[in-house]
Amino acid sequence: MGGRRPKEQNKARPAPMHLLDTYSVDLGLLERILEEAKSFTEVLTRPVPHVPALKGKTVATAFFEPSTRTRLSFELAAKRLSADVISFTAKSSSTEKGESLKDTILTLVAMGADCVVLRHSASGAAALASRWASVPVINAGDGMHQHPTQALADALTILDHKGRIRGLQVAIVGDILHSRVARSGIWLLSRLGAEVVCVGPPPLLPPEPEGWPCRFSHDLDGTLPGADVVMLLRLQMERGAGASLSSLEEYRELYGLTSERLPLLQEGALVMHPGPVNRGVEIDSEVLDSDIAVVCDQVEAGSAVRMAALYVLCSEHQAE
Amino acid sequence: MGGRRPKEQNKARPAPMHLLDTYSVDLGLLERILEEAKSFTEVLTRPVPHVPALKGKTVATAFFEPSTRTRLSFELAAKRLSADVISFTAKSSSTEKGESLKDTILTLVAMGADCVVLRHSASGAAALASRWASVPVINAGDGMHQHPTQALADALTILDHKGRIRGLQVAIVGDILHSRVARSGIWLLSRLGAEVVCVGPPPLLPPEPEGWPCRFSHDLDGTLPGADVVMLLRLQMERGAGASLSSLEEYRELYGLTSERLPLLQEGALVMHPGPVNRGVEIDSEVLDSDIAVVCDQVEAGSAVRMAALYVLCSEHQAE
Amino acid sequence: MGGRRPKEQNKARPAPMHLLDTYSVDLGLLERILEEAKSFTEVLTRPVPHVPALKGKTVATAFFEPSTRTRLSFELAAKRLSADVISFTAKSSSTEKGESLKDTILTLVAMGADCVVLRHSASGAAALASRWASVPVINAGDGMHQHPTQALADALTILDHKGRIRGLQVAIVGDILHSRVARSGIWLLSRLGAEVVCVGPPPLLPPEPEGWPCRFSHDLDGTLPGADVVMLLRLQMERGAGASLSSLEEYRELYGLTSERLPLLQEGALVMHPGPVNRGVEIDSEVLDSDIAVVCDQVEAGSAVRMAALYVLCSEHQAE
Repeated sequence: MGGRRPKEQNKARPAPMHLLDTYSVDLGLLERILEEAKSFTEVLTRPVPHVPALKGKTVATAFFEPSTRTRLSFELAAKRLSADVISFTAKSSSTEKGESLKDTILTLVAMGADCVVLRHSASGAAALASRWASVPVINAGDGMHQHPTQALADALTILDHKGRIRGLQVAIVGDILHSRVARSGIWLLSRLGAEVVCVGPPPLLPPEPEGWPCRFSHDLDGTLPGADVVMLLRLQMERGAGASLSSLEEYRELYGLTSERLPLLQEGALVMHPGPVNRGVEIDSEVLDSDIAVVCDQVEAGSAVRMAALYVLCSEHQAE
Repeated sequence: MGGRRPKEQNKARPAPMHLLDTYSVDLGLLERILEEAKSFTEVLTRPVPHVPALKGKTVATAFFEPSTRTRLSFELAAKRLSADVISFTAKSSSTEKGESLKDTILTLVAMGADCVVLRHSASGAAALASRWASVPVINAGDGMHQHPTQALADALTILDHKGRIRGLQVAIVGDILHSRVARSGIWLLSRLGAEVVCVGPPPLLPPEPEGWPCRFSHDLDGTLPGADVVMLLRLQMERGAGASLSSLEEYRELYGLTSERLPLLQEGALVMHPGPVNRGVEIDSEVLDSDIAVVCDQVEAGSAVRMAALYVLCSEHQAE
Repeated sequence: MGGRRPKEQNKARPAPMHLLDTYSVDLGLLERILEEAKSFTEVLTRPVPHVPALKGKTVATAFFEPSTRTRLSFELAAKRLSADVISFTAKSSSTEKGESLKDTILTLVAMGADCVVLRHSASGAAALASRWASVPVINAGDGMHQHPTQALADALTILDHKGRIRGLQVAIVGDILHSRVARSGIWLLSRLGAEVVCVGPPPLLPPEPEGWPCRFSHDLDGTLPGADVVMLLRLQMERGAGASLSSLEEYRELYGLTSERLPLLQEGALVMHPGPVNRGVEIDSEVLDSDIAVVCDQVEAGSAVRMAALYVLCSEHQAE
């Protein structure tokens, strides 16, 4: 889908940076986003939590999978940076008419998008999109692959509460197999120096764990006492997690953070969940609603991290 | 769904006011919203109908039932107050993933919402939400229970045309049983001094009318001559109103405001309808399109009332 | 759906101009929009591509058919003119409750819309809406009838690349029968002095071509060498185009712009497509992705044309 003007623009501009995952992206970029996010955390406490940083820029969210939380978080982040937002969602979209991902991306850029935030059900979609887009692409979740801003939000939450990540033991519990949040977190946290252990029933752990920078365990009760951070994962029913389990009750019994398990936790341990939560399955309501759980802090950190990611990628891209 | 920062904020802030209904809410608050709405009516006539009153605030609309009118009216009201808007709708949302109402509300607040405008199919949903939210909740319609800003808009429309509410006779006609608009209007208008009479066929009147601050009648022709205001209600087909009726033709014959009934009305009587209208059922097209009907004024008044409600609740909440 | 205030407003304001089609609308208006669009093309290259032209105005998009491209293009255009946007889409709307088009339009105007951008599956819907609206109506596509801003975008793209339209030969290829883009383009381009030839298989050409200001042909290979511009159309599968064809392969063979056909084109010929593209049907991917195709330029031109249309209609309407 050619055109004269976009190509001229491309010549004048450097290749854009993208935020596609937490394992191949330069660690310096991830650390810089975390650093900027700390500043934006302060911005968010102001009476008017806006900065003019991306005034005149247009951020396009392109969501081919339903997700309100992440989309709203990105869109609000963009507005707080004074950017315009265009919100493309697949259900109300020309994908019903069979338009390809490539043409959607090119169209959004031709409309003036300075950054594309992509959610897609296919693993690898964001990487593909980044080959076609002349602007930065942020992966807002691609299939079972990656969701880097969630991992960055979780890292920021840990930093905020614990002051460091290096040397901490982080237990990620549950449906590791289907979770892009797990994949993103495992890589980011281990690259930042944490020791990650993944806990779950055999059918929900990866069948070929070679190369993953973490340990695996089936024993939650044995893992909890050593953990500085316990991160529960959503059972991905919509990806077939249920079929691998004999019952949700049994899952809760073996891998849920129940009230009965609380005494196993260290003093000061953090309990995290990326949401949306299946209350009474991954975590009991009483635990979720207690002070030990920092789920709302993760949401807040997500706002700051998304502001930071948009800011770093878009201002880098215009700098030249 | 705990978290450190929200709780600290809660300590520093007073308990928020909510707008949940028209019967238990302090009458002073309802009157103050009406008073402010008069000022905003003037703002809306300006070339740039904006004020900076809620600059930096974020208004979240959370609609678990489809409704464009009310949602757009609130969102435009928020923008005209210079607030940011996040628009959560259930169909494109994580409720498909089974997130609870509680977690949705907590997440929106954690994202930075300073006010939550809630529409839900369950009666009582707004009251529930107000127990979880640390910010004001505005009920934008909950099941068959209440829709207070519609009642306030109707009251403002009457005030604007009649100069007063006290002492007026208001006939509310049609599907009283399924109507949150009726419930809201009956209470508000009677608290403001109007004499309310509800007219409809027996299956569409409440089976236990004890305690309702109004009279009931099955006789439209006998009621119209005494009415200063005639408020038609939408037949709530989607809530089963049709099943109670032998035919729409018969309904129109007995309870529709037909052209033939116009001579029964007083000089200067107002004809109102909250919309969306079933033309030719509750009201004939010729009547709806005539000067006697003030349906567009109700929509305009809705804009002013929603600006006022957002302004009063959000600025009260930040005042301390 | 009456009301006192809107009627008073109407008295004070002149009848609004509308952009409904490309055949009955005054040619001077179409040319003025093209002229203004050139200025907005320059605005779009600025670091902050915003102007305060419609500050305080509200643009309502009312889409009764799914379409993200066109809706986003209009909404971004409105924002870049500093207008507020309200976005009404039928799926999440009260049309589910049976509200008429008339009442939807009147409600949007009563909410404060200064312009209504309408997409509807019924040919003639925009003309109907313009009879009810006291503000300008822009047709953003009505059934198989017209889509004037797409034709204006295409005209601007041709002007930008060729410097003129008068005297050019434009071949419009494919599903003429079901295409509002074709109908809009044929009239606009021929009124601007181009010689238009429509090429397609007999079942996809209009059965009664009398009065159309263009020639018709079934012979693509014979047409291409004479064409300055080749405009491919989307096969409108959703309108039954497929049923008229023996196979997509045969269609591509006879009417697709395949790589094999490229040598038939003149040096400097433009290849256009309004999108969304069925790659490998109307046009081969290699052709679409080559420099000869200016599809992204059409999207960009669409942004400028929509800014211009909104600006011209809304500022005319307030001028008096």
